[in-house]
Amino acid sequence: MTTASTSPASRDPFGLKRLGINARDAARHMLAAQGRAKAEALRVMADLVLERTATLLDENAKDLESARRNALSDAMIDRLTLSNRSLQAMADGLRQIAAMPDPVGATTETTIRPNGMRVARMRVPLGVIGIIYESRPNVTIDAAALCLKSGNAVILRGGSEARHSNHALIAIIGDALTAAGLPIDAAQMVGTTDRAAVGQMVTMNDYIDVIIPRGGKGLIARLAAEATVPMIKHLEGNCHVYIDAHANLDKAHDIAVNAKTYRYGICGAMETLLVHAKVASAILPRLAATFAAKGVALRGCERTRHLIPAALPATDADWATEYLAPILAIRVVDDIDEAMDHIARWGTQHTESIVTEDLGAATRFQREVDASSVYVNLPTCFADGFEYGLGAEIGISTNRLHARGPVGLEGLTTLKWVLTGDGQLRGV
Amino acid sequence: MTTASTSPASRDPFGLKRLGINARDAARHMLAAQGRAKAEALRVMADLVLERTATLLDENAKDLESARRNALSDAMIDRLTLSNRSLQAMADGLRQIAAMPDPVGATTETTIRPNGMRVARMRVPLGVIGIIYESRPNVTIDAAALCLKSGNAVILRGGSEARHSNHALIAIIGDALTAAGLPIDAAQMVGTTDRAAVGQMVTMNDYIDVIIPRGGKGLIARLAAEATVPMIKHLEGNCHVYIDAHANLDKAHDIAVNAKTYRYGICGAMETLLVHAKVASAILPRLAATFAAKGVALRGCERTRHLIPAALPATDADWATEYLAPILAIRVVDDIDEAMDHIARWGTQHTESIVTEDLGAATRFQREVDASSVYVNLPTCFADGFEYGLGAEIGISTNRLHARGPVGLEGLTTLKWVLTGDGQLRGV
Repeated sequence: MTTASTSPASRDPFGLKRLGINARDAARHMLAAQGRAKAEALRVMADLVLERTATLLDENAKDLESARRNALSDAMIDRLTLSNRSLQAMADGLRQIAAMPDPVGATTETTIRPNGMRVARMRVPLGVIGIIYESRPNVTIDAAALCLKSGNAVILRGGSEARHSNHALIAIIGDALTAAGLPIDAAQMVGTTDRAAVGQMVTMNDYIDVIIPRGGKGLIARLAAEATVPMIKHLEGNCHVYIDAHANLDKAHDIAVNAKTYRYGICGAMETLLVHAKVASAILPRLAATFAAKGVALRGCERTRHLIPAALPATDADWATEYLAPILAIRVVDDIDEAMDHIARWGTQHTESIVTEDLGAATRFQREVDASSVYVNLPTCFADGFEYGLGAEIGISTNRLHARGPVGLEGLTTLKWVLTGDGQLRGV
Repeated sequence: MTTASTSPASRDPFGLKRLGINARDAARHMLAAQGRAKAEALRVMADLVLERTATLLDENAKDLESARRNALSDAMIDRLTLSNRSLQAMADGLRQIAAMPDPVGATTETTIRPNGMRVARMRVPLGVIGIIYESRPNVTIDAAALCLKSGNAVILRGGSEARHSNHALIAIIGDALTAAGLPIDAAQMVGTTDRAAVGQMVTMNDYIDVIIPRGGKGLIARLAAEATVPMIKHLEGNCHVYIDAHANLDKAHDIAVNAKTYRYGICGAMETLLVHAKVASAILPRLAATFAAKGVALRGCERTRHLIPAALPATDADWATEYLAPILAIRVVDDIDEAMDHIARWGTQHTESIVTEDLGAATRFQREVDASSVYVNLPTCFADGFEYGLGAEIGISTNRLHARGPVGLEGLTTLKWVLTGDGQLRGV
């Protein structure tokens, strides 16, 4: 660690260095914290969320009033709103995370070197995690809980629109940490809502080990351009389903419909459907009827439009677009290579799926498609940590290094080498 | 992948975008390459290095002549020099890497979700790796071999002082790739020796997935400050050995001497020795005699100097310094906590070791010390991929995310999720 000297306020206008120094100190204690203390903190947190429901709703009401005064969109107000039900869900989520096994300290299989020394790797916290997010106050609790459970210290930077709610929530987190005998600075919130503070956070390499932004693509792309601290980030999900020549067409129909319509706004929603020419005439008119009934607008290549006259012509812009809306682009391809070429050219390495009963095609697709998740006979909308069995999810990563795809507790940890010997020496 | 449109030369002055586009294309082929083709390429490379020894030595002589004309240091000329022996070592290394198991395509254990879908992770290449290095021409072969074996495409940027040698070596790599039926663009070399090209490389996020710099701390720190492409980087190794109250003092003596004197210039060399007060008077005079005989200059805290009067006083600058030289700082501490505090304050999270026969102390140290490698009863100079059994090493990472510590083939790969179902749908 580089020297963490204190700075005059003039050089630390938002108090971020102070938070960073405190977080580093807390991280050292969290690293060695017992699993039961961390679980206890989360259970107390759950209790306090329920006990202080009235206060939380009052504070949230202040944020909602400002939001309405500032004419925020309905969608934003919806994300900002806490309710008895959402607070109960928060408490339930905390208890679930509390009950999960502690990832820290587990070691991999040990190998014995010829000189007798034992080599293994131990799972350890990342250190200090910075979370930058927008209006959802539930992120304050969810993100803090996952970071603390995995033995990290966390610095939270929520949106100004949720400041009253977040203030009440961070007080709960602090009280719970204290009750469990853990350092209160293991979870801190950035006091200012000045946007410049975010720019400082993403370059505080001495104090923050990883930044996890939660929010729209615009926010994340802007942060990524400035960041020198490594980020676990989620960019686009321009996901494809490819219906192979050897697909079971009933499955293919249901998978394509589910992939598009399960929820339009999620990153795992299918945005382009690729169909092998051999089965296009058998499957596309049937799919067109279902999508028409569900209000999904179709855009297609020339061959698609021959089979679905109602589809508008698709352009390169369609192949490139993550609609997050009831719109679907469709392209007919001559073989699996053309499908994989399309995905390589236009995909965002998020989640891709093939529908086929042919083992060779399934194997090739799963091996050769470069994406964080590659499916066989499943809709892309399964891209979710709970569906994968992670038990919790801090987000979905489109990074290639470290955590890729849905990120659970393990993604908030890293491995260190632990070697144990009995006085072996090198080169003698 | 974002659209890889070609640019006019004016916007690509060093031809790097062209290299990037070629590398992306080659990476897609490498991803699916058979292990035997990759091994074959490395074996042909080994054959060609031996067959073309005369040419390689001639080209190397040109570089050496320029180096002498430009009055490069003896150390630099030493690193630049190829010989019959170093070329034989290069060929041997290539054959060793060829014989290693292919890391690509291996999948983790599969879990079955309640709905019957199967979830696993598959080891896949990182994609395109950029290697930025200085005078050693053997890096051209070593780094390319490791990147190719792990299924990546590589863009090499060597130092201008080695350009003739590197040119001859990249020709060998290209011929070997072609002979094995692999794309020649899987290994490319940056043509220019303009330093600005390096600045462009580390920000080519669309074309390069990870940068691995090989060289001095100055080069790496400068690149890290500019880079937006993730880097697997090695910064400082300010490593400590802590001799506990319950150490076997014979082992402690030998471990401390080996840790310091195995080689002074390696990153795993011990730079500060911490000694528990209870054993200081028993071990320090003995160590002082050994170090004096080996010409290691000692600097110590006050208590150390009481026991070793010849030691100069150590200052904070000594605790902070990676000497890489026959100099050692020594501090007497009151307990393991003070030792771990010292390491947390001054260490660089590289390699730390405790000498003790006490299980509790060993367990605490290994769990609580935050470093990429934490040892019990071993000298820190074991920090090396071959010693860990990795079979090969591209470098040692001081990153926290992704690869930490010695990086072998596995560190040049990542895991993608592979899910296999039979038409399961979400939410129905």
